[in-house]
Amino acid sequence: MADLELMKLLSMTTPSKIVLLVLDGLGGLPAPETGKTELETARTPNLDALALKGVCGFIDPVAPGITPGSAPGHAALFGYDPLNSEIGRGVLEAVGIDFDLQPGDIAARGNFCTVDGEGKITDRRAGRISTDECTELCQLLDGVMAENVAVLVKPVREHRFVAVFRGDGLAENVTESDPQQLGVAPLEIMPVSSAARKMASVANWFVYRAKTALETHYPANMVLLRGFSKRPQFETMGEVYKLTPAAITVYPMYRGLARLVGMKALETGTTFEDELETLRKNYDRFDFFFIHVKATDSAGEDGDFERKVKTIEQVDAALSGLTDLNPDVIVVTGDHSTPALLKGHSWHPVPLLLSSPWCRPDGVSEFSESTCVLGGLGRFPATEIMPLAMAHALKLNKFGA
Amino acid sequence: MADLELMKLLSMTTPSKIVLLVLDGLGGLPAPETGKTELETARTPNLDALALKGVCGFIDPVAPGITPGSAPGHAALFGYDPLNSEIGRGVLEAVGIDFDLQPGDIAARGNFCTVDGEGKITDRRAGRISTDECTELCQLLDGVMAENVAVLVKPVREHRFVAVFRGDGLAENVTESDPQQLGVAPLEIMPVSSAARKMASVANWFVYRAKTALETHYPANMVLLRGFSKRPQFETMGEVYKLTPAAITVYPMYRGLARLVGMKALETGTTFEDELETLRKNYDRFDFFFIHVKATDSAGEDGDFERKVKTIEQVDAALSGLTDLNPDVIVVTGDHSTPALLKGHSWHPVPLLLSSPWCRPDGVSEFSESTCVLGGLGRFPATEIMPLAMAHALKLNKFGA
Repeated sequence: MADLELMKLLSMTTPSKIVLLVLDGLGGLPAPETGKTELETARTPNLDALALKGVCGFIDPVAPGITPGSAPGHAALFGYDPLNSEIGRGVLEAVGIDFDLQPGDIAARGNFCTVDGEGKITDRRAGRISTDECTELCQLLDGVMAENVAVLVKPVREHRFVAVFRGDGLAENVTESDPQQLGVAPLEIMPVSSAARKMASVANWFVYRAKTALETHYPANMVLLRGFSKRPQFETMGEVYKLTPAAITVYPMYRGLARLVGMKALETGTTFEDELETLRKNYDRFDFFFIHVKATDSAGEDGDFERKVKTIEQVDAALSGLTDLNPDVIVVTGDHSTPALLKGHSWHPVPLLLSSPWCRPDGVSEFSESTCVLGGLGRFPATEIMPLAMAHALKLNKFGA
Repeated sequence: MADLELMKLLSMTTPSKIVLLVLDGLGGLPAPETGKTELETARTPNLDALALKGVCGFIDPVAPGITPGSAPGHAALFGYDPLNSEIGRGVLEAVGIDFDLQPGDIAARGNFCTVDGEGKITDRRAGRISTDECTELCQLLDGVMAENVAVLVKPVREHRFVAVFRGDGLAENVTESDPQQLGVAPLEIMPVSSAARKMASVANWFVYRAKTALETHYPANMVLLRGFSKRPQFETMGEVYKLTPAAITVYPMYRGLARLVGMKALETGTTFEDELETLRKNYDRFDFFFIHVKATDSAGEDGDFERKVKTIEQVDAALSGLTDLNPDVIVVTGDHSTPALLKGHSWHPVPLLLSSPWCRPDGVSEFSESTCVLGGLGRFPATEIMPLAMAHALKLNKFGA
C-alpha cells in the first residue's frame, strides 16, 4: 500500500492544529574557524526550549546523497513521494502568480537578461530590473502568436516572468535556452522527442520575437526560458489527510507549490512577523499551516554565513507569535540544507523538531545538526513528517484489528 | 526480492534456539511529574543486565506515525509485512479458540451486550458476564440455520464469542452491527458489495434470532457482531524460516495469530511464571518460542501507569526462568506502545533488546525508551527483527558468492 493510501485510510478531521514551519535551506556546514554550523552558531533560546519539550530527528528530503530542488524538497515535506511528484519550474512560477493553467498548457520560467552586440549574455538577470519594469516589458510580449499557439507572458518578480504556451499539440520535453553561464549566446531550444517538435519551434520563434521587441530596452534586451512543464495532478491534502490546509509564504513559487497540493495560499506581508500575524488572524479557519521562511536559503545561496545566522536568530526572536497560539503540533525543519560554505542547496540531512503534548521527549535541549542526529525520531525520510505530525495531533485512526 | 523470499533462500535448520518475548504495548510516554516512562520507572535489574550483554534498538511496528492494531503489530514481529497481512478480528478470535475454519467460512467477533426496553444499548459488554455464562448462552445460539447457512457460535472469554457462518455464497465485506457507543440500537448489517448481500441478510437474521432467544437472559439480552472476515493464507514460519515454532500466550487472540503463521500454540497457565514453566517443559521440542505478556497492554489501556510499571517489574523478577535456559538468542520488545497517558495503542516506537553470544554490545546498560533510541541497532522496522534474530542464532546462510 502506498503511503498516501494509508493516510487516506486512517486520517480523520479533528479540531487539533498542526503548524509546519519551514526554514528554507536550514541545514548547514560548520565554519572552519568555529566548527559550528549556521544553526549551531545562532543564539536560539526559543527553538532550543521547543526542542527540549519536543522530540528531534534528522531528515533526508529526497534520499541520502541527493540534493533536492525546492519542488521535490517541499513535495516530501507535504508527504508526497518526491521521486514521483515532478513539478516543472515553469508550472511552479505560473501557479505561484495565480495563473490559471489549463490542461495542455506548457509553462516556462523566463528571465529578462542582458546580451551584448554579439548576442552573448553579459547578465543573466538584466541587473535585476524592478518588478514594475518587468511588468511593462511583459505587456510588450504578452499574446504573441505562432503556429496557432498563444504565448501568455506574465511578470513574477524583478527580472522573472512566466511564459505559458497555449494551443494544440504542445509537449513539455524540450531543452532550455538558458546556458546558465555568461559570455555565450542563449541556446536554441531543441525537441527531446518528435512529439515536442512544435513546442521547440514555437518557443524559438517566441524568443526571436522577444529579442526584436526588446532591442531598445537595455539592460533587459533578451529573454531566457527554462523549466518547460505541464501541471501535474496531485491528490490534495484535503483528500489525503482530511485537512483544511493553508500556506503562509512570501514567495510566489512556494505559494504555487502549496496550491498544487490543495492549500489555500494566504495573503501576507514580507517578514516572518507578518507571516505570524497572518497565522494569528487565520488561526480559526484552518487546521494545518505551512509557514515558509525564504531568507535562510537566500543567505546560504549567497554564501553569507553571518546573514544566515542572523536570519535564524530573527525567526527565533519572533517565535512566541507562533508558540503563544499553542498549536497541538509544531514541526520546525527545512526543505533541504543550503550551507553558506557551498553557496547552494546540498544533500546534507536537515534537523527537525516536533513539539506536541503527545511526543516522547528525548532530552535534546538544543536545536542543531549535531544534536538532532541523536534525537528520538532518528534519521528518516521527509515523507514521514506528515504521518508523524498527523499522529501527534491525534488525527490518525489505528491500523488493523 | 520480497523479504520473506530472502529468508526462504537463506534460512537453515540448526539446534540453536530463539526466544521472542513480547511485552504487549511495552512502549510508553513519560509521566509529567517524573519525566519517566513506565519502563523507565520500573526497577528492571535483569532486563538491564540483558541489555548490557546485548544490543538495543528502537522499532517501528508498522511505520512512523502509524498506530498498530494487535494483528499487524504481531505480523510485523514475525517478519510479515503488516501492510499486506490483513487479518480480520473475527478470524483472529476463531483461530484463537482452536476453531477449525474452513475455506469459505466467515467469522465474526461477537459480544453479548445489554439493551433496554427500547432496544438501545446500555452496556456493550453485558456487565462482563462469566465465561461459564457465555458458554451456556452460546449453546442457545449455536447451530442456527438461515438460507442454508449454519451459524456456529462458540464462547471465547467473558462476554465475547465467535460466530462462524458456514455455507455457500458468503462474502466478508459487510458492515458491523456494533455502533461502538451507548444509547443507540445495534446497527443493521449492510452489504458493502452486491456479492455480500446474502452474508448481510443471514447475519441480520441471526441477530434477530439471538435477540429473541436471549430476551430473558438480562444483562446478556442482545449480541453485537463485528470484524466479519475470512482466514488469510500465510506462508508458515516453518516454510519461511525453517523453524519449528511454538507460541506461549494466555490470550486466545494471540494464540490465533501465532497459529496463522504456523506456530504450535502450547497450553499454559495464566501468569508469566506459568508461561516460563511451559517454556521449560517444551524447550527441547521447538527451536523458536514466542512468549506473550498481555498485562502490560491492559494496564496501559486502563490508563494505569503504576500497574504497567508493576507488571514490567514482575516480568523482570521472573526473568531467570528464561535466561537460565540460556537460549542462543533472546529478543525482548513489544508489538506497539500503549502509553498509560493515552489509554490506548499509540504510534511511538518500541524499545528492543537482542541478546546473543554473537551480538555486538553497544554499551546500553538500561532497557528503556531513552536508552534504546541510542542503541546499536538504531531505529528500524519491526519486520527486520526476525532476520536479525535468525542471523544471531546462526541460522542464515551467506547471501551471494
